[in-house]
Amino acid sequence: MIISNKKGARDPEGETILRDLVHKSGYGEIKSIRAGKLLSVTVEAEDAQSAARLVRKMCDDLRIYNPAAHSIAVEAGRPSA
Amino acid sequence: MIISNKKGARDPEGETILRDLVHKSGYGEIKSIRAGKLLSVTVEAEDAQSAARLVRKMCDDLRIYNPAAHSIAVEAGRPSA
Repeated sequence: MIISNKKGARDPEGETILRDLVHKSGYGEIKSIRAGKLLSVTVEAEDAQSAARLVRKMCDDLRIYNPAAHSIAVEAGRPSA
Repeated sequence: MIISNKKGARDPEGETILRDLVHKSGYGEIKSIRAGKLLSVTVEAEDAQSAARLVRKMCDDLRIYNPAAHSIAVEAGRPSA
């Protein structure tokens, strides 16, 4: 599950990395950096779909992100063993 | 680009979210959470391969991650406009 600042919203963390680290070090080819948070969640579920549904519900329920400022993307697959 | 704690290494952030938030709130189906950092980097490059190469070089060069503790995964594609 990926939590990122909404498109269009500012992203101070990414902007700072880009301006104060990357560009100052001469990497002019880098045009933008957006920071986000990844949570890899292992779930016991019938199938990928219900796993994704559960994770989405948990994120909303426990306020793991702020729906006013962030968007989340949930992607389900089998655990990579 | 995703920065995560190496497999096998402990992940205090994920462990804390799992134990003190998720399990305490009754989500027993969640078996593990690993936290990581996502940086979406837009690069000016000839092709996806050289974009990935540049990002990897920049990460090593600027010590954006700690190779002793973290692993990175770089995945390249066209910007989603």
